[in-house]
Amino acid sequence: MKFTAKTIAEFLKGEVLGNPELVITDVSRIEEGKPGTLSFLANPKYTEYIYTTGASVVIVNKDFRPKHELQLTLIKVDDAYQAIASLLQLKESMKPRKTGIHERSVMEESSSAGKDLYLGAFAYVGEDCVIGDNVKIYPHAYIGDNVKIGDNSIIFAGVKIYHECVIGNDCILHAGVVIGADGFGFAPDTKKDYKKVPQVGNVILKDRVELGANTTIDRAMMGSTIIGKGVKIDNLVQVAHNVAIGENTVIAALTGIAGSARIGKECMMGGQVGIVGHSKIADKVMIGAQAGVSSDVKKEGEILLGSPTMPIRDYNKSYVYFRKLPSLAIRIGELEKKIRELEGNDN
Amino acid sequence: MKFTAKTIAEFLKGEVLGNPELVITDVSRIEEGKPGTLSFLANPKYTEYIYTTGASVVIVNKDFRPKHELQLTLIKVDDAYQAIASLLQLKESMKPRKTGIHERSVMEESSSAGKDLYLGAFAYVGEDCVIGDNVKIYPHAYIGDNVKIGDNSIIFAGVKIYHECVIGNDCILHAGVVIGADGFGFAPDTKKDYKKVPQVGNVILKDRVELGANTTIDRAMMGSTIIGKGVKIDNLVQVAHNVAIGENTVIAALTGIAGSARIGKECMMGGQVGIVGHSKIADKVMIGAQAGVSSDVKKEGEILLGSPTMPIRDYNKSYVYFRKLPSLAIRIGELEKKIRELEGNDN
Amino acid sequence: MKFTAKTIAEFLKGEVLGNPELVITDVSRIEEGKPGTLSFLANPKYTEYIYTTGASVVIVNKDFRPKHELQLTLIKVDDAYQAIASLLQLKESMKPRKTGIHERSVMEESSSAGKDLYLGAFAYVGEDCVIGDNVKIYPHAYIGDNVKIGDNSIIFAGVKIYHECVIGNDCILHAGVVIGADGFGFAPDTKKDYKKVPQVGNVILKDRVELGANTTIDRAMMGSTIIGKGVKIDNLVQVAHNVAIGENTVIAALTGIAGSARIGKECMMGGQVGIVGHSKIADKVMIGAQAGVSSDVKKEGEILLGSPTMPIRDYNKSYVYFRKLPSLAIRIGELEKKIRELEGNDN
Repeated sequence: MKFTAKTIAEFLKGEVLGNPELVITDVSRIEEGKPGTLSFLANPKYTEYIYTTGASVVIVNKDFRPKHELQLTLIKVDDAYQAIASLLQLKESMKPRKTGIHERSVMEESSSAGKDLYLGAFAYVGEDCVIGDNVKIYPHAYIGDNVKIGDNSIIFAGVKIYHECVIGNDCILHAGVVIGADGFGFAPDTKKDYKKVPQVGNVILKDRVELGANTTIDRAMMGSTIIGKGVKIDNLVQVAHNVAIGENTVIAALTGIAGSARIGKECMMGGQVGIVGHSKIADKVMIGAQAGVSSDVKKEGEILLGSPTMPIRDYNKSYVYFRKLPSLAIRIGELEKKIRELEGNDN
Repeated sequence: MKFTAKTIAEFLKGEVLGNPELVITDVSRIEEGKPGTLSFLANPKYTEYIYTTGASVVIVNKDFRPKHELQLTLIKVDDAYQAIASLLQLKESMKPRKTGIHERSVMEESSSAGKDLYLGAFAYVGEDCVIGDNVKIYPHAYIGDNVKIGDNSIIFAGVKIYHECVIGNDCILHAGVVIGADGFGFAPDTKKDYKKVPQVGNVILKDRVELGANTTIDRAMMGSTIIGKGVKIDNLVQVAHNVAIGENTVIAALTGIAGSARIGKECMMGGQVGIVGHSKIADKVMIGAQAGVSSDVKKEGEILLGSPTMPIRDYNKSYVYFRKLPSLAIRIGELEKKIRELEGNDN
Repeated sequence: MKFTAKTIAEFLKGEVLGNPELVITDVSRIEEGKPGTLSFLANPKYTEYIYTTGASVVIVNKDFRPKHELQLTLIKVDDAYQAIASLLQLKESMKPRKTGIHERSVMEESSSAGKDLYLGAFAYVGEDCVIGDNVKIYPHAYIGDNVKIGDNSIIFAGVKIYHECVIGNDCILHAGVVIGADGFGFAPDTKKDYKKVPQVGNVILKDRVELGANTTIDRAMMGSTIIGKGVKIDNLVQVAHNVAIGENTVIAALTGIAGSARIGKECMMGGQVGIVGHSKIADKVMIGAQAGVSSDVKKEGEILLGSPTMPIRDYNKSYVYFRKLPSLAIRIGELEKKIRELEGNDN
């Protein structure tokens, strides 16, 4: 990678402030920037670093106004985070992609794949699978029988996809993801013993889903567990059987969604969130880290915190007084004492 | 699958209300039911769907009384959830099971297996293992040295079982499960550095244990980490070294049980529960989602919530007032003002 | 293993109280001790067992004073837990270690390894990797292109290391660990859709890092996610992109550390802790189980609990009154009634 500030600004439809002929050869984080690199400032928490960074060129939002003079060259754009994403996508697209079928992989004969398949060493594709064009299956991936994988999807090392599951186009499944393991269903046989409820459904990932490392999506008891188009799920997340997640919902790490929950579109969940089974969450709901949703959330766009959840403003107010509880208790004790005095009954 | 309502009712020892000759060819969830399918109603939360479902036949509990007339055929049974479990088990038992030893698997010569072994592609069985009859080992499973696996157990894709661990009969280990990794034991060498405490014990799973995808059970420091008979553990659960879990205990996803905890029989844990190390939990204790147990639980059958845990009724009561804390604080302030007025000391 | 109490005491620089000629052939936990075994007492919670254990010899801290007469032989040392760690390390060092390159493994030709490599069945090493001396790579491990692994490191079964990551010397990565999967970075394209931010950085593990089963460490967006020297991380922990963790910090299971957090040296985190993104945690900070850190922690050595966190003493005090909230509310109601009576305004 070797570009001038001017070339980059043109690609980003941005404006150069400083030396347009500066050449950059790599990217860097603003707090670790080195000469000859391009950095960006999007999160205001990092603003201080723009005055000390070693980076030669920094992409900033259009409305950025430096408080001191800057030695470096700026590129002003509408959205600095978007801009760096576009640049990195360009950089990535120039890297060679994995291709070819490793001689130590196995695809059973009844399965088929489109053009430009990459099948890594020790990857396994079972019977009757249908794999699209330009799919990349890394080493040690396991694709069970009757699985469908759409075009351009990437299945990283050691992903396991159980039989009959369906992966859309342009999906990315990171290493260790498990799709389609049995949902957690047991019928108490007597009060002492459990009978397994076979899970005869499957999992469907729609297009453009990305799943983080070691995340697990269980197959439905009947029907399908459905992950909507454009959903992004972080690492170590549990999605139980028969859950349905709406389009473009984003879920951070270590969250657990219990069976048959229905999550709306464009929701956001922080890390370690829990969602109770059989609940319905409206669209655009935001749930803060470590919160526990124990019932339906009917109001679109609600922002929640706490376990069980409350509107975030209410939770924060209550928590202010939780911190002060010992002093509130003392004040109550003093009031009681004064009342007794006023009543002339001071025992 | 193709049965009449009458045949199904006979198999379930239930009673047909409607057309006994109706033929069903598949199962469905009641909220998604299609003509020609069989559904069930067990969870009262779904009762409304029986009036709108497209399913032709619905299994219900004996005591179900419809509020409006129903067009569909009912099968009344003692326990609808049990009944559907039995039917699905029947359906599953008719499916062909995996058999044979894939030419691209490895079992070291010092190991032995009983009859009807399935050993998938790239599965590995180490030295001196003893594997029972009718065991299914899926692709990419890793069985370390000196491991024992009982009859009829199923080891799904990419399960890793470290050396010397013991798996009982009729166990199911879902993809990505790790059995017998080192417990988390370090002795501070000085205040700055840690010396590893080798973990020389193992893990023992008794019969009929089922473990969810990517769950981890650590080997004991000495002796054994023991998972009791019939225990069911969901996905992404951590069981630390030297834990012992009693029979038929059920544990939901993302729960963590710290070292040397002793869990009773027939306990139930919700998702994301935490149990402190070296604690003892009595039999039949129920712990709500996201609760944190920080000391022994001595009372059988106790139901707990909160972090640290409290009896659930107390937690819920306290939480009602937690929500009202800002208004309680205002009331205290008003009381103080009135007292000052009454005291004639209004500054 | 077969030693006299005297030999063990000499190795540990301890003192025998009892029969120095007693022969022990195995180790055991004190609550399960059998004749002929050596046990230890370090955690005071287990003191009662020393009066009933079947173990023949028990290692105790120098200051241990039995309350009743003991039949068994004691070895008194400065630190019983350290002593047993040393003994178990000796025991482990006598076990044969895995060696050799399995014929069903693959290392691409452009990669190189030092002496005494163990490469298990179906292990895969990609292009241009540099692997040190005495490295053990277990079956089904995946080492991506351009990975570096230092001397004496152990990569257990099914570990996946993405391209360009760096593993130090003397590291231990347990089964199912994922190093270098993409960080969770998406730029909202419009309000409805997300554009992937390519993650072009890597992960660096310094020397002596140990990672528990199924733990995930994401690669940096730019630069490196850095795990400091001597850091010990338990199972199922999530470390997000661009996190930096200081030396000798210890993190228990199911903890999640969000992006770009900077954790100090010698910190300790309990299980299921959450750390917000972009936060800075000072050295030697201790964070209790299930706590949620939502802002910087500036004070070295602080001990925190709660979500959001508070100093542990404050949290515990507030929680005492949280338990009493219903009675505090009743007391407020009674005070209001009495005030109304005193005001002569009893409606």
